[in-house]
Parts: sequence; structure tokens; C-alpha cells
Amino acid sequence: MNLVQQLAQTDRTVVGRELHQFAAKLYPICRSITGNGIRQSLKMIQERIPMEILEVPSGTQVFDWIVPKEWNIKDAFIKDSTGRCVVDFKKCNLHVVNYSTPIRAKLPLSELKKRIHSIPSHPDWIPYRTSYYKEDWGFCLSQTQATSLPEGDYDVCIDSSLSDGHLSYGELYLPGKVKEEVLISCHACHPSLANDNLSGLTVATHLAELLAGKTHQYSYRFLFIPGTIGAITWLSRNREAVTRIRHGLVLTCIGDRGTFHYKQSRQESAEVDRAAAHVLKHTVASSTILPFSPYGYDERQYCSPGFDLPVGCLMRSVWGTFPEYHTSADNLDFLAPESLAESLHVCASIVDVLENNRHYLNLVPFGEPQLGRRGLYPSMGGTAPESELSARLWVLNLSDGNHSLLDIAERSDLPFGLVNATAELLLQNGLLAPVDNDRC
Amino acid sequence: MNLVQQLAQTDRTVVGRELHQFAAKLYPICRSITGNGIRQSLKMIQERIPMEILEVPSGTQVFDWIVPKEWNIKDAFIKDSTGRCVVDFKKCNLHVVNYSTPIRAKLPLSELKKRIHSIPSHPDWIPYRTSYYKEDWGFCLSQTQATSLPEGDYDVCIDSSLSDGHLSYGELYLPGKVKEEVLISCHACHPSLANDNLSGLTVATHLAELLAGKTHQYSYRFLFIPGTIGAITWLSRNREAVTRIRHGLVLTCIGDRGTFHYKQSRQESAEVDRAAAHVLKHTVASSTILPFSPYGYDERQYCSPGFDLPVGCLMRSVWGTFPEYHTSADNLDFLAPESLAESLHVCASIVDVLENNRHYLNLVPFGEPQLGRRGLYPSMGGTAPESELSARLWVLNLSDGNHSLLDIAERSDLPFGLVNATAELLLQNGLLAPVDNDRC
Amino acid sequence: MNLVQQLAQTDRTVVGRELHQFAAKLYPICRSITGNGIRQSLKMIQERIPMEILEVPSGTQVFDWIVPKEWNIKDAFIKDSTGRCVVDFKKCNLHVVNYSTPIRAKLPLSELKKRIHSIPSHPDWIPYRTSYYKEDWGFCLSQTQATSLPEGDYDVCIDSSLSDGHLSYGELYLPGKVKEEVLISCHACHPSLANDNLSGLTVATHLAELLAGKTHQYSYRFLFIPGTIGAITWLSRNREAVTRIRHGLVLTCIGDRGTFHYKQSRQESAEVDRAAAHVLKHTVASSTILPFSPYGYDERQYCSPGFDLPVGCLMRSVWGTFPEYHTSADNLDFLAPESLAESLHVCASIVDVLENNRHYLNLVPFGEPQLGRRGLYPSMGGTAPESELSARLWVLNLSDGNHSLLDIAERSDLPFGLVNATAELLLQNGLLAPVDNDRC
Repeated sequence: MNLVQQLAQTDRTVVGRELHQFAAKLYPICRSITGNGIRQSLKMIQERIPMEILEVPSGTQVFDWIVPKEWNIKDAFIKDSTGRCVVDFKKCNLHVVNYSTPIRAKLPLSELKKRIHSIPSHPDWIPYRTSYYKEDWGFCLSQTQATSLPEGDYDVCIDSSLSDGHLSYGELYLPGKVKEEVLISCHACHPSLANDNLSGLTVATHLAELLAGKTHQYSYRFLFIPGTIGAITWLSRNREAVTRIRHGLVLTCIGDRGTFHYKQSRQESAEVDRAAAHVLKHTVASSTILPFSPYGYDERQYCSPGFDLPVGCLMRSVWGTFPEYHTSADNLDFLAPESLAESLHVCASIVDVLENNRHYLNLVPFGEPQLGRRGLYPSMGGTAPESELSARLWVLNLSDGNHSLLDIAERSDLPFGLVNATAELLLQNGLLAPVDNDRC
Repeated sequence: MNLVQQLAQTDRTVVGRELHQFAAKLYPICRSITGNGIRQSLKMIQERIPMEILEVPSGTQVFDWIVPKEWNIKDAFIKDSTGRCVVDFKKCNLHVVNYSTPIRAKLPLSELKKRIHSIPSHPDWIPYRTSYYKEDWGFCLSQTQATSLPEGDYDVCIDSSLSDGHLSYGELYLPGKVKEEVLISCHACHPSLANDNLSGLTVATHLAELLAGKTHQYSYRFLFIPGTIGAITWLSRNREAVTRIRHGLVLTCIGDRGTFHYKQSRQESAEVDRAAAHVLKHTVASSTILPFSPYGYDERQYCSPGFDLPVGCLMRSVWGTFPEYHTSADNLDFLAPESLAESLHVCASIVDVLENNRHYLNLVPFGEPQLGRRGLYPSMGGTAPESELSARLWVLNLSDGNHSLLDIAERSDLPFGLVNATAELLLQNGLLAPVDNDRC
Repeated sequence: MNLVQQLAQTDRTVVGRELHQFAAKLYPICRSITGNGIRQSLKMIQERIPMEILEVPSGTQVFDWIVPKEWNIKDAFIKDSTGRCVVDFKKCNLHVVNYSTPIRAKLPLSELKKRIHSIPSHPDWIPYRTSYYKEDWGFCLSQTQATSLPEGDYDVCIDSSLSDGHLSYGELYLPGKVKEEVLISCHACHPSLANDNLSGLTVATHLAELLAGKTHQYSYRFLFIPGTIGAITWLSRNREAVTRIRHGLVLTCIGDRGTFHYKQSRQESAEVDRAAAHVLKHTVASSTILPFSPYGYDERQYCSPGFDLPVGCLMRSVWGTFPEYHTSADNLDFLAPESLAESLHVCASIVDVLENNRHYLNLVPFGEPQLGRRGLYPSMGGTAPESELSARLWVLNLSDGNHSLLDIAERSDLPFGLVNATAELLLQNGLLAPVDNDRC
């Protein structure tokens, strides 16, 4: 039973609700690239899948970077001259520029304003801002609130700490029949933002659960990491594992109501690129394939020239292009349960293609075999072939050892699932043999 | 003189009429994949071209298949309870499911109906059905007739035989200057259906007549065979000849009023694929190139992975896509004499390309040769080049030994005939030399 | 400072005026493929750039051609029976068929008419006609004038000479850091026609001035030559220099108000073809890339199969396609100063691409380098990358030694100038190293 069939055993509405519920559970936590927020989030994932949580000390050199100090925050607020709390971190953790250094000060409005970020075009939304690698502090407010602050002095407090500690990330390795690996990576460092990237976390966790429960060809490695520094840290500590990655997907922004976008790997026509494009074409109503570019999420690290891994990025709406991106409007309402379920289904379909994309050899290659004798051809001649018959003829015709099942699915424009099922049928009928050592 | 020029010596209307007349002569015969119907048809072709008729015994193993028993039929009818003949094989041989086993029985209407095939969407047409490889019997009626049969008992008779005998096919080999071969193949097994495939038979026969009367570069092999089993039989008995096939065409459904369709070989850009596309582009008003698929006519055998021959399929309307396909409406009226003549012209043009597609070497490759001195360039400068001059410059420019005349015709978008005539002119003027051993 | 920056130091309106003024200075001269007209024109160019003028004797064998006799003309006229001068060479040198043999005769109108060329569709324009390689003579008149000549005898005089002399051409060699060459070629043989090709002469002269004043990577060779015979003569006398040509441009018809057309070299995707296409895409509002064809200007000699040089042709309106082509309407008004200036800018941009198109190696290839530490990344996260940042990421990502800067510019769709400036910035920051021996 392949992953899609396994997934289909549960009603898709139920799956969507579960995915959304897990995102909702993670939503309130103030995550960052280090600290207790991401640590706590990883533990919640660990309750579902047998994942390791790794801790890398601040100051560790990882390629060109150094693991930063650990950031933690207890509270933050702005009080006006009457002592009224006008901005409260506990109400929305986006209010504080992520990684803000601690501050406790009294400031006139004019000084405070230099520390305030807002979005004029969306006056009710609070922006998300960070300052990871330059020590700084600031607040994020809705434009409405920012412009309504009266003159006067303000008490400003950010009760944070920035000190030696650790960078935390989660890693799940699911050994398969072969050592060659499929990498599923998602960033886990954003605070209360839902699509970016609780959508990725919840879908990846569910996918890992599905895979953990069954035998599979490839080994799978799931990474739940802080963006950029996390991917670089993992890459620098796993030089050997990197050489075994055959396919990879970064999952981000896959819970909103937009259509799918798949961004190709730097290699542009790697097997995962072709698998994703094929699955989207045959599975969802509308989708777009984007060429590789060196900005985006952690695919930019996996696809850096020293690695050049075949890792693409699956999204629904593209980061940076939807107005809710990096604002408080990327909240739980912005996630649609049915979108999450569909995204999981697409991921499972891609895994199924990668798992089953083998080469076969037609054992009766001279002319067509007599399918009718084997009950594989309609006995009454004179009518056009149906897709099952068409798939049989395509698989037989192209199984010369040089065409994989994905090659055949692409050339015939038949869904991979049908092509794969057909290959199994022909194998059972002694008409095909698998080509050995297919993935080594 | 090339084939097109030879063909042009006869008025095209006359050619079209002759093609149609030969189809009309063959039309009434009840052909099948074996038996006297196809044998008689082959003899009628043999009266025109020096073709061998080969007989392969029933039971012969041919790759994965076995040559079936020979089927013959004398008569068939259905009589109602009053003894009135309501269905008469002699009026239309489509009435009997082809390869029906003998039967003589009295059946109530309810039982008879299980044996009747008709086409609800075209109530006046009789369908064509076969049961070659599963012993069975049945009748084909128009929907109108099938639904108007009154209750009662019916006398049913199929006076056929299915017994050891032979599979017959026709083969004409026309030796050329080289042993490398062009294969022209058409199926000859359908009973009274005109476009499918008397159109192929009459055009192929005429093409063979043209080629038999002249010297040619390639050797030509024409096959008039029962579909599927005939191609497989020939392939299995001619393993050595197969290795010499350089180009091939299956001709089918080339007599109707539709536009041309050329289906590429499995190789997709074999020389014959390019020649056919070029000829259609420059010769007919509108045409479509179809990618290879492993269903269709005997190209599926020639293009099976064990052979992978460069054999395409030339059609006008595509089998299975026009309503008349495999019905009594595919009759002589469905064939247009002018369509048949045009199809022959296209075939002759493709042969001319294959015959003349050579590589030449420009003997004056440094700068342009002074064409004016040789009377090959207008002496009065200042006006734009015409197509003859353009062809001269293209042939000189690309005749570096790496470009064939077809390469040049494609890149210049000039018709092959002009490019070829230009190469001959430049050869006569000492500006080109043929590249040796071009086709070995 | 690259060429475009150097050019930008002068106001483009001023540049356009200068280009037009030099064309105007050359306009009245009656040039031909040999003789004092072209010689005098070359001397005027020589006053601006340190160019050699070479003289090749009549009768010299140059590949398949022979350098023709030198043609000179003092005067020509047609007088009517009353002695009134009805056609005067001094008013317009197009009146005489270029290379006309000397004649002095009295002819009736009927005989004269056989010698007269005109353009019925443009009754007020005088055509340009030549007869270089067939000794002949004739006159070119407007259709209006030609049809208004009354019956009577006419005095006809062409005071020309055709005798052993020389073919003259100009050649400027500007040595660069490497011996590999860029060829800029334009034909200088047309009489009073402005776009064809005083536009090429004035732009090439200005471009040579710019290059003469600075250090450059490649060596540059400018040719001001008679069309066809000049290119063939140069090629035949410079067999060794030819082997060093890495890129080349023929400049013709680049002064009119039409949009740009770049005709690819025979190689179709040579570096100059890609550079020209890139520059046009990013520099001008609208342009067209034309595939190579073996007719046109001297690219047909450079691209003959014995040489197959990577030489394209830059035009605005395409020769032969605009009504003014080869008529008296191709005059100084047909040239737009702003068009000339823009054409020079495009040429300079192409040179800048060729000069700077190097390969670099990312010295920090594993993951992204930490750009923020180096002031190359915005410290406040959460906003989309701008084109400078995008260029940094692209250059880092693709600088694996296999991608040139032009490759990177094409794939990122960023202008080459930005990509090149980015490479310099990254080089300064120690993130890139040039790949050695890039152009050898």
C-alpha cells in the first residue's frame, strides 16, 4: 500500500482538521531561531514522532557563520505616562522585534517612534520583524495604533535575554531499504505566524507519522530547524549524510487557500522536480512551476554551489507575494484545513513517485506480447483503447531499461499511479523484470 | 527524374480516379486476418506489381504469438419465424463478427440480442467487430434494425470454418543501389471498409508501381499484411532484413477528406519523421504532427522496444476519431479520389526526400564563391535575393559535410525540392562534392 | 570605468549630433567598391582614429574572386536635344549606375530608356543600382522624371574610368591584454546613402575612438571595407588573424528610427549572439533577434563554412525591408541623431559584456556566506530582497566555475552591468576569485 492509499483511509476532512489543530496548538508560542520557544515547539512535535532534538552551543563555527547567542523573552510592554499598557507582548508576540536586546527605559514619543515598525498599507496588521545578527531592539504595532499614540513619555520594557546557550533543531531519521535519502525540511523559527510556517510543521509532522508506520525504499530525514542558520548548522555537521541525499523538499506556506507553487531545485530537472511537477499536474486543479532562484527558504542553503542538492520547495501562495505575509494577518484563519489536507496529499503523492520510480525491462520486447491470452486485452476488437490498456502498451513499449516509470508517465501523460500499478500487473504476468541496482 | 516529377506526368484527377477504382474493386471482398478474402485481395494487387504472396501455417510460433487457424466464410443470415431473411451477409459482410465460429441454431429474440452489436449514436450504420483470438460468434446490425426485430424465434446461420490453414501476406522487394531499406507497410485484413484500409492498399500499390519502374537509391520493401499478427509474423521471419530498415511508413486511413496527420516513430526525430513533417509543411494546406504512442496500427510492432525502427504512420483523419471509423459508413463514398491522389503525392514527396537527402561539401568554403561569374547571381546589384539565389547561398553555407540537404531545407525553410535542385546545380558548377558513403 | 560609463560622460543629445554630423560630412562623396570616393572617405575616418589604409592591386586573386579594376568618375549627365542638362551626376551621384563604364553617345529616347532604372512605386525617389562585375552602364532616375522625358535625341555622358588600380580599405587594430580579437566590420562602399551605411561608419568610428582611449581585455579590429569583395580580400590576406577572432559584429543600417534587429551568427548561440540579445533585452524598448541566414552584409563572408566565425549583424531597420532602402530617400533626414546615439550605446554595452564576461569561483560555497556581517545584507529581516541583494545571491549561487557572468545574467534575468558590478563587490569582499585563463 502506497502512502496516498494509506492517507486515503482517513476522511480528508478529518485529516484537515487534525492538521489545523496541531498548527493551532503551536500558534501561541513565541519562537525564534534559538531559545525556549522553538525548543518547546520541537518537544510538541516530538510527542508525535520519534524525533531527536539537538542542541548546538552558541559560538560554534558553522561554515561562514557562528551559532548566535540564545534569545529568550519573558515579557515586553509599552506603557503611557498614565501607566496604561498600550502595547503588550503577551497579547501578540509579534509586537517585539524578534531577537530584541533587553531594554528598560522612559522615552518621549519622538524617540519611541524611531523604534516602531508598522505597515501603512494595512493599518490594522502588526508586522513581523527580526534583528538576529545585529543587536538592536524595537516594537511592531499596527499603523492605527502607532499613529494614535499621544505625545508624552513612555515606559518601554523588553524583558529578554541574549546570552550563551544553544541553537535547537529537530531531526528524524527513518531508515529505509537503501541508505539513499529523501530530505524533508521546514523552518520552525517563526513566532505566531500560521502559514509561515506552522503549515509546513504540521504537514511535515503528519507525513513523518505516515512514513514511520511503514516500510519504504528510501531513508527519510525530516528537519525542523531555524531558517538559514539551522540549515547551515545541519549541513556543516552532517557532511556525510549530505552525500546520500537523492531528493529533497522544503515545505513552507502550504496551508493557505492559494494555488500550489513548486520552485525547482538549482538542478532544474532533478527527479524531485519532475516528480513534483507531474504530481501537481495530475493531482490539483491549477499549479505553477517556478524556476530556481537563490532567495527563498532553506533550499537556498541546500542548493548552494558547494552542495547543489536536488531540493525543491513546495508552497501554496509564494512567500513575499501575499499581503498577509509576515504580518499578524497570517493567523489561524488564514490556514484552511482543506488546504493543509491537500498539501499533505501532494507531499504523499510525491513520495509515492520517488519510492516507486523504477526501471523495468520488457521481457517480450519483439513486437507486442499477446495481451489477450493473458486477459489483458479486450477480446472484442474494433473499439478504442482505454487508459488501462493504454498504460499497458506504454509501459511495455518504453520499458527498455532506459526509461523510468516517471519517464513513461511523462511521455504518456498518464498519472504515475496508473503507470506504477500497470508495471506491477505486468510484472505479475511475467512480462516485465525490474532493473537491478536501480537507486545506487 | 524524381518520383514527384514522374507522378506529375499524369493529371492528378486521372490518378485519383484510378486509385479510387482499385479501392472499389477490392471493396466487396470479405477480408480477415487469414483466409481466402485476404488471399484473393493480395492476388489482385499481385496483378499490378511483382509481389510474392507468402503463406505461413497455422500454429507457427511468431514471437509471443501463434499463427491462428484460418477463417473462411461462405454465408450467414438471420431468418425470422416466417422464414424471411432479415440479416444477410451477402448484402454486407460487416453483418458477421469477423472470425465468428460456425453456428446453426434457432434462438428466441432474447437470446439472439446477446449476440447483436449496434451503434446507438448512429442508428443507420452497421458496426465492424472482430473476435480473432477468442472463439466466439455474433452479428452486427444497424441500431434501427436491431431494435425493430419483433419477438419470436430466429434461425441463425454462420456458415464459416476455422481450421488449420495459413496466414497470407504480400511482400514486394525492390532492390536499390544500396541494401538499406525503406519499408512501406499497410494492413490488408479489414473487410468492406474503405478508408481503413483500402485507401492504404491502393496508394501503396500505386507507389510500388512508380518505384518498380525506376532506379532508386534505397531498396524498398512493401508489406500488405494482416494487422498485428501479420507484422509480428513478418518481423519474426525476417530478423536480418529488419536490421537494414532505415526508414518506414505505415499507411492507413489516407483516403478521406480530412487533413493529414503524421504520427512520429518512437524515435521521434528519425529522418523519416523529419522528412514527413517537412513534406507536409511545404506540400499541403494544413497538417498535424502527432507524437508517437504505442497504440494505432502496425507501427506499434515496428516500434516495439526490441526493434525500435524508425517507422511512422501517415494518415488523413486519425483512426478512432472520426464517427465513420469501423462502421459501414466507411464506404467508397467516404473516399475522395482527390484525397487519394494527394496522399500518393505526399508519399512520393517523402520518398524523394529520403532518396535525395545527401551531404555535400562546399569546395569553395572560404567566403562566398563568385556566383556572378558562373551566371548564378544577378549582375545588377541592389535588389533582394529571390528564393533560387537564397537556396544557392544556403546550400553553399551549410554544405560543410555536417548538414544534410534536409537539415538545410529545415533551417532555411525552403522546400526540399528546391534545395535538392540547387545542390545539383552547384554540383554541376563544381562548387560542391558529394560526401562519400553517405548512407552506410 | 567601462565603455558605457565613459560614453555617459557626454550628453546623449550631443553624441547623437556628432554622429549625425560625421555622416553628413561623408554623405556627398560618390563611394564605390574601389576608387577615390572610398579612399577619400577612409581618409576622413583616419583623421579621427589611428587607422591604416591598405591598397590591394587590381587583379589580385582573393580566394574565388579577383580584385576588380578601380573605378573612378568625374562627371555624368544626360542632355536633351536643346542642350539642357536633364540629369546631372553632380546633383545626385545615385543617377549613375555605380561602376558604369565610360560612355559618350547620342541616343534616341527609345534607346536611352533601356539604360534607365526607376521605381514606379515611389515615383519621386532615385534608385541605387550597381554593376560591379559585369561591365555595363546606365542611369537611375525618379519615375516622375523618367516618364516625363520627351521624344528626341539625348546626349549621354559618363566620364568614368575603369582601369588597373587598387581596392582600398581601412583597418584599425587596437591591441588589448590578450591577443584574442573582437571584430567590428562595416561596409564603406555605398555612395550617397545615409542609413546604408554612413550610420555604420559613424558609429564604428566613434566606438573606435572610445576604445582607443582606454585599456581593454580583448584586442579590437575595425574594418571599413567595400562590401563582399572587401571582406573576402581581408579574409584572404589575414588567415592568421582570423583564427584569433572570438567575437564579431557587422554594423549596418543603424541610424534610422526603426527598432533594433540583431541577426545571429551562423553558430546561433555564440557569446556575441547571447551578449547582443541580452543587451537589447535590457537596454532598449523593443528589439528582434533574427536567425542567421546566408544573405545580408559581410557576416555572410565571415560566416562562410570555411571560417564559421561568431560574427553577428546589428541593425535597426533590416536592409531590403524598408522602402527607402537603396534609394535617394535613404538620406540624411532618414538618420535620427538619437537613433545613432542609441545604437552607439548598444554597441558599447555589447563590448562591455564581452570585456567583462568572466567566470568566478565562490570561495564560500557551502551554504550562503554571512553577508550581513560584511554589510551586504539588510540587518532588519522580514522584507523581500531587492535587485542588488538578488544579484549578490545569484552571483554567489552560480559562481561554481561553470557559469560565466553572462550565464548568470541570463538565468537571473538581471542586467549584465548589475551582475558584473556585483561580482566586483563580492571579489573585493573576498567571496569570489576569478577563474584563471578565462579567455584562452
